[in-house]
Amino acid sequence: MAITLYDLAGAEAERRFSPFCWRAKMALAHKGLEVETVPWRFTEKDQLPQPNAGRVPVIVDGGQVVHDSSAIAEYLETRYPDRPALFGDGAARALTRFVQNWTETVLQPGLIGFVVLDICRHSAPQDQAYFRQSREERFGATLENVVEDREARLPAFRDSLAPLRRTVERQSFLCGASPAYADYIVFGCFQWARCISSFPLLLKDDPVWTWRDRLLSEFDGFAGKALGYPV
Amino acid sequence: MAITLYDLAGAEAERRFSPFCWRAKMALAHKGLEVETVPWRFTEKDQLPQPNAGRVPVIVDGGQVVHDSSAIAEYLETRYPDRPALFGDGAARALTRFVQNWTETVLQPGLIGFVVLDICRHSAPQDQAYFRQSREERFGATLENVVEDREARLPAFRDSLAPLRRTVERQSFLCGASPAYADYIVFGCFQWARCISSFPLLLKDDPVWTWRDRLLSEFDGFAGKALGYPV
Repeated sequence: MAITLYDLAGAEAERRFSPFCWRAKMALAHKGLEVETVPWRFTEKDQLPQPNAGRVPVIVDGGQVVHDSSAIAEYLETRYPDRPALFGDGAARALTRFVQNWTETVLQPGLIGFVVLDICRHSAPQDQAYFRQSREERFGATLENVVEDREARLPAFRDSLAPLRRTVERQSFLCGASPAYADYIVFGCFQWARCISSFPLLLKDDPVWTWRDRLLSEFDGFAGKALGYPV
Repeated sequence: MAITLYDLAGAEAERRFSPFCWRAKMALAHKGLEVETVPWRFTEKDQLPQPNAGRVPVIVDGGQVVHDSSAIAEYLETRYPDRPALFGDGAARALTRFVQNWTETVLQPGLIGFVVLDICRHSAPQDQAYFRQSREERFGATLENVVEDREARLPAFRDSLAPLRRTVERQSFLCGASPAYADYIVFGCFQWARCISSFPLLLKDDPVWTWRDRLLSEFDGFAGKALGYPV
């Protein structure tokens, strides 16, 4: 029986942009598991299965409900140990957390300032007021103000990718010759931007572009087929 | 027979501050190998064993000469596979490179601007002119000018440690419950600063301080006993 994944969707049901849902989708694809996704909107908190944390990703695997992308990755690794490993050994699992923390303290805060208005514009009509209000409170500024200087911030953002760039310049993936969960954590962020925004974050001659391209092509081009912008 | 390590020294022979030599020393300690260090100064390029790249660390293990901290770590892992592993599996080794690239593009460039004048002051008299000239060319400024605003740069530097901080807040070491080479790469940078400069980079309530303390205590307090400043 296929695993069900509740997946954040925009105004179009096929626009799936959550970075955390992308982590889960890539992890499920890595394990080669059959998945049926359910499009879900920010304001549909009551439509998630119990126990309900009001957020996605959530998977339902048989009778098991698992919330949170990190918990989902751990669950899949434990539940499907004979399928390709998401982490590797103990050191690899520990170092994956460093990559996650870099993603969440450097990459994601950098990216949000480029795409937050695009997220709002692509959100389902019933989600837009919720999204705008919660994010404007967080930023202490209108979404229009947050993004207005994004061109000027682009060089510093690209510089901040140096640790990623230098790594994937010298090896195909963060995890080596083939991708694993640390790659999906970082990729989820770029896929978030790519699914929602036409703003060109990466240059085509950037090794980060090439690495992202490799991941867009994985699993028969699974992520590359997602509705988004070819930037 | 003990392994010989050529180790950068300051005016005092016991002041050993190279971040790359610290990587090698911690790797050798991790493997439990006996080491004899030879103090070496920047201007003693002709005193290194052949083949001679003019830089340290260099180790001599029996008839084998190995230059460069990364090559030394690889050599030790291959030559002494039955001793504690420096890397772990293929994914861990690949992810260690991400940590290395973060260290070399974020941490090290951040740190140098705090300690470069202190390095010059602690260098051997015969090294000072070489050191000052080569670094002033690189910065396009006098060493005094480079460090004069260091207090003002401290908050941003501490912020830049967020990926490290968040990781070692939740696990003892970057590599998990016990340290390995990725920890030594990052630690080497902090030990560089600690051996050469009284400038207080870290606050005592910072999880990064606590993580560094754990590493200073490893191997019977090996790194903690090094000549330096208790900051």
